[in-house]
Amino acid sequence: MKKINLQTLKGFRDFLPKAARGREELFNKIRSVFQKYGFLPLETPALEYKETLAGKYGVEEKLMYSFRDAGGREVALRYDLTVPLARVVAEYANVVDYNEQFAMPFKRYQIAPVWRAENPQRGRYREFTQCDVDVIGSSSITADADVIACIADVLRALDISDFVIRINNRKILDAILENSGIPKNRTVEAIRIIDKLEKIGVEKVREELALLGIRTKQQGELFELLNAGLEDPKDIEIKLQDYPGAGELAELVEILLEWGIKNYRVDLTLARGLDYYTGTIFEMIIPGAPQYGSIAGGGRYDNLVGMFTSPNPLLNKERAKGEVPAVGGSLGIDRLVAVMEALDLVKYDWGSDVLVCNLEENLLEKYLQIVKSLRDTGLKTDFYYERVKLDKQLKYADKKNINFAVIIGQDEGKNNEVSIKNLITGKQETVKQKDLVKNFQASIRKI
Amino acid sequence: MKKINLQTLKGFRDFLPKAARGREELFNKIRSVFQKYGFLPLETPALEYKETLAGKYGVEEKLMYSFRDAGGREVALRYDLTVPLARVVAEYANVVDYNEQFAMPFKRYQIAPVWRAENPQRGRYREFTQCDVDVIGSSSITADADVIACIADVLRALDISDFVIRINNRKILDAILENSGIPKNRTVEAIRIIDKLEKIGVEKVREELALLGIRTKQQGELFELLNAGLEDPKDIEIKLQDYPGAGELAELVEILLEWGIKNYRVDLTLARGLDYYTGTIFEMIIPGAPQYGSIAGGGRYDNLVGMFTSPNPLLNKERAKGEVPAVGGSLGIDRLVAVMEALDLVKYDWGSDVLVCNLEENLLEKYLQIVKSLRDTGLKTDFYYERVKLDKQLKYADKKNINFAVIIGQDEGKNNEVSIKNLITGKQETVKQKDLVKNFQASIRKI
Repeated sequence: MKKINLQTLKGFRDFLPKAARGREELFNKIRSVFQKYGFLPLETPALEYKETLAGKYGVEEKLMYSFRDAGGREVALRYDLTVPLARVVAEYANVVDYNEQFAMPFKRYQIAPVWRAENPQRGRYREFTQCDVDVIGSSSITADADVIACIADVLRALDISDFVIRINNRKILDAILENSGIPKNRTVEAIRIIDKLEKIGVEKVREELALLGIRTKQQGELFELLNAGLEDPKDIEIKLQDYPGAGELAELVEILLEWGIKNYRVDLTLARGLDYYTGTIFEMIIPGAPQYGSIAGGGRYDNLVGMFTSPNPLLNKERAKGEVPAVGGSLGIDRLVAVMEALDLVKYDWGSDVLVCNLEENLLEKYLQIVKSLRDTGLKTDFYYERVKLDKQLKYADKKNINFAVIIGQDEGKNNEVSIKNLITGKQETVKQKDLVKNFQASIRKI
Repeated sequence: MKKINLQTLKGFRDFLPKAARGREELFNKIRSVFQKYGFLPLETPALEYKETLAGKYGVEEKLMYSFRDAGGREVALRYDLTVPLARVVAEYANVVDYNEQFAMPFKRYQIAPVWRAENPQRGRYREFTQCDVDVIGSSSITADADVIACIADVLRALDISDFVIRINNRKILDAILENSGIPKNRTVEAIRIIDKLEKIGVEKVREELALLGIRTKQQGELFELLNAGLEDPKDIEIKLQDYPGAGELAELVEILLEWGIKNYRVDLTLARGLDYYTGTIFEMIIPGAPQYGSIAGGGRYDNLVGMFTSPNPLLNKERAKGEVPAVGGSLGIDRLVAVMEALDLVKYDWGSDVLVCNLEENLLEKYLQIVKSLRDTGLKTDFYYERVKLDKQLKYADKKNINFAVIIGQDEGKNNEVSIKNLITGKQETVKQKDLVKNFQASIRKI
């Protein structure tokens, strides 16, 4: 017999019950906050036409899982959730049939796996879950603030309290770089270098900027401006009054303050790697756990969503010109899980509530009745199918993180009694069978 | 500019917000029942080594989406959730590192998309969600009953009450066919023919059986037995006493009755297409809506999960022989949704609760305060980002299925009042701003 490879592919993962339940709880909490902010879900296919995805990411195409299907079509697994969103907006937004359920601005969330054929490293996978909120079709800074407030609220709902929101506006950064004498065709590279400031430190950044042709004096002016203390909206307007984007940034900060969000830091060195951002950019970091980097981030990208719309005659004039304003944010699920585990914030009870043990053949009917009565009250109830030694059944309960065992041997059976064993404390009490459910609910509350 | 194909691939679907929210609600309800029965979630990758999946389904390999990845590996998108489950059991069950969280019998559920390159038809897609519960590692008929009871409970939780559970045991069917003189190598074909009984009628089935070489007299005996009324467990044992599997079937029915499940029908003609079933088989149908076929089904398949285990020296002796008993069931999500829509059982409120309208520039601060106070009480609150005509904002609310609009013009603003418009009834009332949240919650309850 040929030996079959029993493992997952490199960079791919199984989530066993404990981790999988944790993810379910996490996604439920995130969804519930997203909905509180008026976002609704969207599902798109895992596979798209390759031409829909290709050339949109500024990355090498071989990082995409693409192939020819049995019908000869060039297809690819989605690389992110943003390009499929742009495709959806172009496909449905102004089509009469769908108009009834497609409201613009389109506020959607999507939590779904994406696939990237990158070299797997610690914490980087080839299949991972992206978790995005986006507002398509509004230029209002209120939309930027709504996205940031929503993601900050998600973090608070997950009991992550000591995070900081770094905020910047790409227009300011672009202008600062231009004023520093960096040639236009070098700004993207300069932004990528400045983006590494937190990671590699100021000396390395200065070295790399020098290699790009930026002289020491210009660098000095650049860093002086980048390091200006800018917390108050008025400061921003005064110190940056000549810069485009300063008004937007001040307005954004005003709205966040109006909503009671004070844990932001205006940081003109924040660049966010991707070059499709056009205005507001932000990211959430945990100063006490810098090793995890940013756990969420996003920004305004007014030129991306329009890319599909120009050739579509069904769209209105504004969108037909390719002008579809958009702002969004993304939570890094794997990093979030790592942070929550490190900070001991994972509090869900992943196992079942109770195991009804299977001990005596003549008592099977009784066991089945009890299983049903417990389930009818909503308790997560497991029954051990085989009649084996009690020890083995309790070990099963332990592995499944079950808190209570219901034990009925011949004695209890004769007396219409049941023993309830608390598997955390080891304590056991015997009660009348008719009082089981009542007693049980009391015990559950006591944990 | 090259015209980009803006659509999804044939057989693939987008789920727009209304449908996507419906699916979220559906999956949440299903998960909650699965957990009540002691099942826990498992997540496996979308992509597996092709050799893991290939040759396991008795279908043509070209129905699988397979390709060579950038690293030269033959990979494939999962075709179902059962073969990956078998891979997981073989990979983790007896490996010491995982032993701590891998309890056997392994009771898991998985709700996830699978991909099949079949010809798309009405109601058949190339990407669709499978929803499975399985018990791996128990031969007890109680496990079979647990799976059936669990799926029946899911249907009740979805308010589908008038379904019937067709039950059979593959051992009985096999023996009946053997006794009818059908050659051993023809039983699978005969089973496939009998399986079509409900669809194509008895005459067509008899014709096809005749083509298989089964004579009229044998067919008569076959159908007499197949049509015997068998509801009571005692009947089963008496009428089928010489048949293997009759004891199992009787025991199964006894447990279901013990749990108060009466809407079953023992049906010896039930075959379930797949040839990997080895014992209990079942399916749920809605007699009032036969056009939807079976909305759920499953059975015992003791020879499938073991297929990966023989070459693994880490597994214990029993499993090393390839003997891993298994029983499971599956809900057909697309059919369920269709049935629920047809029977008007879709009751979730997919939209947001309230839209705060954006009318006057000088009142922005007030709008933002109100948005925050509503969200703080947990209300799903949307804010219209742009200042446009009220009509346009209310149309947006309508498309997003929002029930209430909060309207504050200059008059209300001056008097510290707000108007609440019920978008279902059209009624509008004006209240003090400080009473908004209270009034609001009362209105919500009134719907």
